[in-house]
Amino acid sequence: MQNAIGEECSMDADSILEGLLKENNSKIVMLVMDGLGDIRSPEFGNKTPLEYAETPNLDALARESVCGRHIPVMPGITPGSGPGHLGIFGYDPLEVVIGRGVLEAVGLGLELKHSDVAARANFATLDGDRRITDRRAGRISTEKNIQLCNILKQIREIDGVEIIIEPGRGHRFVIILRGDNLNPAVDDTDPQHEGTTPLEAKAQKEEAAFTADIINKFLERAGALLKDQHPANGILLRGISARPKVPGFKEKYRLEAAAAASYPMYRGIADLLGMTLLPVPDTIEGLFRTYTEFHNKYDFFFIHVKGTDQAGEDGEFLTKVGVIEKVDSALPILFEKRPNVLAVTGDHSSPCPMRSHSWHPVPVLVNSQFGGSDDAVRFTENQCNIGGLGFFESKHLMSILLANALRLDKFGA
Amino acid sequence: MQNAIGEECSMDADSILEGLLKENNSKIVMLVMDGLGDIRSPEFGNKTPLEYAETPNLDALARESVCGRHIPVMPGITPGSGPGHLGIFGYDPLEVVIGRGVLEAVGLGLELKHSDVAARANFATLDGDRRITDRRAGRISTEKNIQLCNILKQIREIDGVEIIIEPGRGHRFVIILRGDNLNPAVDDTDPQHEGTTPLEAKAQKEEAAFTADIINKFLERAGALLKDQHPANGILLRGISARPKVPGFKEKYRLEAAAAASYPMYRGIADLLGMTLLPVPDTIEGLFRTYTEFHNKYDFFFIHVKGTDQAGEDGEFLTKVGVIEKVDSALPILFEKRPNVLAVTGDHSSPCPMRSHSWHPVPVLVNSQFGGSDDAVRFTENQCNIGGLGFFESKHLMSILLANALRLDKFGA
Repeated sequence: MQNAIGEECSMDADSILEGLLKENNSKIVMLVMDGLGDIRSPEFGNKTPLEYAETPNLDALARESVCGRHIPVMPGITPGSGPGHLGIFGYDPLEVVIGRGVLEAVGLGLELKHSDVAARANFATLDGDRRITDRRAGRISTEKNIQLCNILKQIREIDGVEIIIEPGRGHRFVIILRGDNLNPAVDDTDPQHEGTTPLEAKAQKEEAAFTADIINKFLERAGALLKDQHPANGILLRGISARPKVPGFKEKYRLEAAAAASYPMYRGIADLLGMTLLPVPDTIEGLFRTYTEFHNKYDFFFIHVKGTDQAGEDGEFLTKVGVIEKVDSALPILFEKRPNVLAVTGDHSSPCPMRSHSWHPVPVLVNSQFGGSDDAVRFTENQCNIGGLGFFESKHLMSILLANALRLDKFGA
Repeated sequence: MQNAIGEECSMDADSILEGLLKENNSKIVMLVMDGLGDIRSPEFGNKTPLEYAETPNLDALARESVCGRHIPVMPGITPGSGPGHLGIFGYDPLEVVIGRGVLEAVGLGLELKHSDVAARANFATLDGDRRITDRRAGRISTEKNIQLCNILKQIREIDGVEIIIEPGRGHRFVIILRGDNLNPAVDDTDPQHEGTTPLEAKAQKEEAAFTADIINKFLERAGALLKDQHPANGILLRGISARPKVPGFKEKYRLEAAAAASYPMYRGIADLLGMTLLPVPDTIEGLFRTYTEFHNKYDFFFIHVKGTDQAGEDGEFLTKVGVIEKVDSALPILFEKRPNVLAVTGDHSSPCPMRSHSWHPVPVLVNSQFGGSDDAVRFTENQCNIGGLGFFESKHLMSILLANALRLDKFGA
């Protein structure tokens, strides 16, 4: 590729956007129903939850909006929550990866500094020769986990590095190292199978040697503290990682962004991308009221509804329908302070018949003064198939919203 | 681009798939009607062959499947058989190229070793000064071609390299060099126009000098043998090439793959990609019966129906309709051993009004337990336009099939 004066150059989505961004007073709301997309369930009239639900407000909105379906990563690829949200926020999930340690930490509601290193940890069972006999310590209870983490919290500091321990569910917990000169390029200590001893923490490069050393010292001291705590007498670490080094919403889009999300994981992802976390009650009306309250203070609002994904993962069709209908009933609250651009979508699909995340394209509608409309008469997966947005990679959704907000200049003369 | 630990990295489709693949006992069938896609013919009620045909079985299948259209190379680009099949098999046709010599050789049913070098050859007419007067030797008959090739077969070996000659149709034949240290980086000897002498075989790099030398020695000896065979007294070589160095289905997808295809070209492409070639009768029922016979022995079946493409290239609308209806009638045979995932599609379009391959997106349906369904009520080009797969590049079809077979893990946490 050559530029106007004949030199080699190349342009990608990021460099194009950067040159076109402009600011105005528009408000953009992205309403994310987690795991929204679904497939038809034969036992419910061969309909998807969106097709089955009574959604007069969403349907009316669909008729005056442009619809489509977005593909989180690539056709056929099922995303986790990290890649799913990165995509709709315009970060290519093939380029930006949130490490598992970081995701687990933010999922527990911990705030991570840019210099922190986080790891996901399992309690495990070791035999007399320190060989792993159970990678999950017999799946101990969360109560037991909390007791054991309280023991480990005796280790507060190693060689000037603060050690932060936070219990998760069952046998899982998180360790955060906080201090100077830390580097996350350290291999897992979890060998991923039983019958061998845990691995030493090994630096992948010179700059991470200090961090590996801290981790090994921690593991040694923790091992002594857990000696008599069979079946939870060992620790395995995975996903040693730091906050991704990516520009936040302000830098990338010139948007002051805020998140109305009640679940720690999604608050955490929003925080990693520079959004302000708003205080929210755990109801759909509460999420929407939070938006109306803070409407004047931010340009972009991420509103996250978790219930749809939980219902999908539990295979609870009618529960998913119920969450969708609640969102529909609460929609007029959003319109009390009507945003210039409103997108309604999910981060991925979680079909009830599969009881898991899936690869199916995600329905989306975009409503704005100049967004246009199409022949979709309801907000459903299959009506979105005929929408004016077509099928597109999730990472392009943000450009579409910025365009609808008239925040992008023309490209080229 | 950053990885989980904040370092630069990049991921493409291949590296993602590699990390997500898992094995199970599912069976995947890809039924390819060659050149299936079409456009409407005014003289047949302004319908496409798929719209005109009576296809009760395909229509019933479409109603419980997810449909869409795939784009072989890029919008507007008409693929040959090589790129068309590479695409639906998940090899990017812009990255993997099957050389013309290789394609011609496998199209004649020749088996190519990994170390072989193949070239496509034309008989041509040379004048007294060895200038080309006809690049196709007056389009001699295939019978004459066979006689001439029998003469050339006297050249069995040059400097330890075995020479294999195989006549094709009309003025075309194939030369295979078999031996050690061969390298296909040799330019065409065909200057592509008349009035000049044939070119010397020229190595593009040092490692191919030996191969170029063998070819030049062959051309010299062949020239002597053909001296009195006017108008076929010269030879022009094109597409000097070797088998593409790509991972086969087992390595790329962890699939034991088999091909039920009766035409040499498609058997050849399947062989290049590591599929086992099944013995097949040249009828549609026969192809389908072959699948049911071998159902237990393989994970993936490529079933290739040639008739649709031939009819398209001949402009024979009703013949194409007939082939489609035969496939439809035979479909219940496939269901005797119902695969977990069934895709019905083409490798490209061959519209009857054009009498050639074309760029038009190819209709596809995917049927599986968790594939979902959409509002398409028939398997036609235009019903596929409203399908839940949308429009996608052909190279993603394999990921979609693997996902439907539950052979892919989730990407990211």
